[in-house]
Amino acid sequence: METSTTSNPNVSNYPRIMIGLSRGQEEPDASLVAAEARELGYDFIILPITFPNYRRFLFEQLVDSVDIKETKLMEEWRKGQPFCREDLVVKNAGQISNWINLDSSDHNIRINSEVILRQQLTWIGHIGITAALIPFPSDSFINYARCINSIFGTVPYINMWIKIPLVLEDETLGSKETITWERWNKFRTLCDNHVRLSIVLEVTQNLPEDNILDRWFAEPIKAIFLPTTIFLSNAKGFPVLSKRHQTFVRKLIKYKPHFVIECAADGPNHASGGLSAYQEYVHHLHRTMPELTPVEQFALGYHDFLQSPLQPLMDNLESSTYEVFEKDSTKYVLYEKAIHHALLDHNTGSEEMILEAAEKAQKRVRVYAIEKNPSAFVTLQNKKTEIWGDKVTIVFSDMRLWKAPEKADILVSELLGSFGDNELSPECLDGAQKFLKADGISIPASYTAFISPISSSKLHNEVAAYKDLAHFETPYVVMFQSACELAKPCQIWSFEHPNRNIAVDEDVTFNVRESGILHGIAGYFESILYKDIMLSIHPDTHSIDMLSWFPIFFPLKIPIYLPSNTKLDINFWRLTNSHKVWYEWCVDPSLPLGYETVSFGPSAIHNSLGRSSWIGL
Amino acid sequence: METSTTSNPNVSNYPRIMIGLSRGQEEPDASLVAAEARELGYDFIILPITFPNYRRFLFEQLVDSVDIKETKLMEEWRKGQPFCREDLVVKNAGQISNWINLDSSDHNIRINSEVILRQQLTWIGHIGITAALIPFPSDSFINYARCINSIFGTVPYINMWIKIPLVLEDETLGSKETITWERWNKFRTLCDNHVRLSIVLEVTQNLPEDNILDRWFAEPIKAIFLPTTIFLSNAKGFPVLSKRHQTFVRKLIKYKPHFVIECAADGPNHASGGLSAYQEYVHHLHRTMPELTPVEQFALGYHDFLQSPLQPLMDNLESSTYEVFEKDSTKYVLYEKAIHHALLDHNTGSEEMILEAAEKAQKRVRVYAIEKNPSAFVTLQNKKTEIWGDKVTIVFSDMRLWKAPEKADILVSELLGSFGDNELSPECLDGAQKFLKADGISIPASYTAFISPISSSKLHNEVAAYKDLAHFETPYVVMFQSACELAKPCQIWSFEHPNRNIAVDEDVTFNVRESGILHGIAGYFESILYKDIMLSIHPDTHSIDMLSWFPIFFPLKIPIYLPSNTKLDINFWRLTNSHKVWYEWCVDPSLPLGYETVSFGPSAIHNSLGRSSWIGL
Repeated sequence: METSTTSNPNVSNYPRIMIGLSRGQEEPDASLVAAEARELGYDFIILPITFPNYRRFLFEQLVDSVDIKETKLMEEWRKGQPFCREDLVVKNAGQISNWINLDSSDHNIRINSEVILRQQLTWIGHIGITAALIPFPSDSFINYARCINSIFGTVPYINMWIKIPLVLEDETLGSKETITWERWNKFRTLCDNHVRLSIVLEVTQNLPEDNILDRWFAEPIKAIFLPTTIFLSNAKGFPVLSKRHQTFVRKLIKYKPHFVIECAADGPNHASGGLSAYQEYVHHLHRTMPELTPVEQFALGYHDFLQSPLQPLMDNLESSTYEVFEKDSTKYVLYEKAIHHALLDHNTGSEEMILEAAEKAQKRVRVYAIEKNPSAFVTLQNKKTEIWGDKVTIVFSDMRLWKAPEKADILVSELLGSFGDNELSPECLDGAQKFLKADGISIPASYTAFISPISSSKLHNEVAAYKDLAHFETPYVVMFQSACELAKPCQIWSFEHPNRNIAVDEDVTFNVRESGILHGIAGYFESILYKDIMLSIHPDTHSIDMLSWFPIFFPLKIPIYLPSNTKLDINFWRLTNSHKVWYEWCVDPSLPLGYETVSFGPSAIHNSLGRSSWIGL
Repeated sequence: METSTTSNPNVSNYPRIMIGLSRGQEEPDASLVAAEARELGYDFIILPITFPNYRRFLFEQLVDSVDIKETKLMEEWRKGQPFCREDLVVKNAGQISNWINLDSSDHNIRINSEVILRQQLTWIGHIGITAALIPFPSDSFINYARCINSIFGTVPYINMWIKIPLVLEDETLGSKETITWERWNKFRTLCDNHVRLSIVLEVTQNLPEDNILDRWFAEPIKAIFLPTTIFLSNAKGFPVLSKRHQTFVRKLIKYKPHFVIECAADGPNHASGGLSAYQEYVHHLHRTMPELTPVEQFALGYHDFLQSPLQPLMDNLESSTYEVFEKDSTKYVLYEKAIHHALLDHNTGSEEMILEAAEKAQKRVRVYAIEKNPSAFVTLQNKKTEIWGDKVTIVFSDMRLWKAPEKADILVSELLGSFGDNELSPECLDGAQKFLKADGISIPASYTAFISPISSSKLHNEVAAYKDLAHFETPYVVMFQSACELAKPCQIWSFEHPNRNIAVDEDVTFNVRESGILHGIAGYFESILYKDIMLSIHPDTHSIDMLSWFPIFFPLKIPIYLPSNTKLDINFWRLTNSHKVWYEWCVDPSLPLGYETVSFGPSAIHNSLGRSSWIGL
């Protein structure tokens, strides 16, 4: 059992969405635009920082000895002249001029662009706007990346939101749907994955394939631009979105970004409803979102929230932890069903569910409840006194050490972690084999761990924030949201009992179709409780409405870029000594180059000897 | 000027070499072998740790309920039984059994191999041998790498020397000369570049191409194995090496490794000279090494020794620093020659060399010597009083600020750093333009910086030892030895005067033919003093016997594996503000994949805003 045992950090239902307006006017009157937007039902507006006339500085150069005065002026300007009041559109919002060219072949334009960028961003920083909208990088953008990177160092607190279209509509490059992601990825890598660099996603008329769309969910999206041109007209002339666009926007709503309606200077593109119709339509999509499932409801506020896995063997859990897990009726129903079937098949069976199952199966059973947690044992004593009476014998002991008075027909345990074996079920059940009859039944009968390569800059940043190696060598229980699977999960190992080999190692190969950044490994489990009764947190076979386990996440110290069609080997070891169990992991990506497959930079082996994370025996 | 200004850390001539003996005997008598080796003139011996009979443990398994006693014994052994005395060959040296198989498909053999490896290495650690010779990894070796990596964590101080043949002789893979390097590279990457993991290189009959051989010099080579089978016989039946082998061994001698003669159990392979002939021959190669050049002599002890570049503008150098550089006659000869030619060409021209040049050119000159270092100015006063008299006017001033009483015909300066402009020659000469006549001559006339991608795990480890970001964003002056250029140097920028643009940026593309690990960027300069008189530390055009500059090294925070045929873009910026100058750099490797070129993970931009390293104005 592993989900959320601390108080929910951020509870809310589908979050309220904010919709802004961006108009392509060249010389807007800020207060007029703001008043109009408010009237049309928009929550905020986006405006350029300066009027077009400010562009005059771009082409200035240091002229030698021709016009000393002009040269002086230019030198002063480059050193950091203040804005002229009349150059400023707004005194309170920030869209960086998209005509600057930091990678121009002209040295002066490069230098001037940097001065302009710095001047505009410094202004935004000064007036307390925390985010600036910066242009999408063109073909070459290394100097642009360097300038943005250096501004993080000089303008404190400022966030940069880079505007990225889903598809580059005007490109002559054929079906390169991934070019905008590739460019973003290179840009942020050059900026060393700065946490204040995020994305504003511009939804385009054409949408790329689903798996390419999905990749954006692993990225730090702050806002969504919806140009009015992507809206269709319905029968009455009102703007609506296509089915695929609706699906994508609804998915985005879960990530609570801000939405911005982007409109040409000459007004709306649709016959009916005017400018307010766009925001009304997006609000409509928000209102008509499907009901949250119990798991979604339960997970709210826990998305991408890293928690340490439980150590129920080494630690004694608190009463409140038990209470959280006891709410998960799905799990108990599955266990009861498994016991019921085992009783029907066999001759004989812990606690209520066993008794209930026994009652249903009309069997007489003797039940022993073994508990090693002294405080939880008090609860058992209460239950015995108040409910069970003679039906249950309660025993205070570690199951690995208990000397049973008789051998059992059925051994029921729930020692499963998010990775199956990570709460040391193998070790405990191995120790308990001695009091199970030769033809006895263990519930669960087996459990299998699954892994998949995963991309999530958000989770990487969360781990990196600790600034130490140990946190990169530690698994976390986490409900993924800002994450993207780079390949489907594969099985690594399975435990059945009895099993002498509790140290296991496995190598799984994945084919990564689309390029992406590998940040870590997601882990899941499936368990066969009895015969066809399965309990699963594998995404494809997840037990309906079961809340007890979130997935597990094994980070990588250094993210690795995987080009499309990478063959990715992931090695996992489950290792053990006399007092602990731990995992070690590494990845080894390779590419087909000519006739051979070339391994390009494996990771280091993580968590050697369990130095950073381990589970106590 | 930038070479070695601290006292030489490790002076020696061609170092004394140590030659050991390794015999392939299955059951050697350690003391007999040692006595024999001593008699034959060898300095040390290499022996296996255990006798072959110890191999019996490899196939043992945990058998369930068949033979409880044997199972118990095996469990005990796995938990760490001591060696039986009779299993140990030596009580004092360490060659790990090469029959262990840590990546066997058989789980028990994997587990047993790990126990054996750990037992042998723990023994070596215990008896105080600091290095163990470990086998070359076979096809699959991920578990082997994990075990070695984990032993670094448990056996303190132990060094692992992995034995690597230059060419895999028995391979059916065609001409894959690089496979042994690739395997080593992957192994050490998995072990996170552990500093206690090094190489013992086995010289093979066939030698790969020179550029593939060169790559090994960037690696931590601790010893060289010379099998007796690679020796030819000379006319008298004595063992000798082929010309190419001689060249390679001589090059290796410069790196002061230990040599080991590796001989089959049945004795030497050559008719004459017996076993001692091999060591005598290697000693002969050592004795007949070519004389060291003055630069080699000067550089001894400075190889791969990281020094901070000088800051002669911001700091005032010490007298001893000047003394070191004044020893470099080559530089002064070149300057004198340049001034001589300038005087001949022009009408008129610091100090002795100018006076001498003037005398030679039979010109009457007025010489101003401008010095901003108060202590160095004392030296100039002494020179004026004792030698120059009226011939030289000495001025205490910063050349950027001096108000000259007359304009000069020739401006002579030596403000060059290892990267050309890194001691701020551009800024100083820019400030001094005002007292140079319109048709005046600047010596140097221009200077050009060059860069090349470089591999050196040693330098990377040296920088990483500081455990901070700042040292990875700092350039170092260093005499490369354990380094390998991955492509030939390319020019990045040039300075001529006058020049208004002292902020420059450049992007250079390299074609990396052979795979390698990129650890940083080497920097060099060439300067045209006057007309065809050039001063250079570029490897291809290096001024003969000139000692004043070692190359410069810009590290990369994270080493990048470059597959063969990588296209590598390196971006460099020289940036400036009112009080400092700094460099920023990044690399962007890409590969041709199908029809496109895919950028696979650029580096971050290093030293943003000069946060880690800068040169004070």
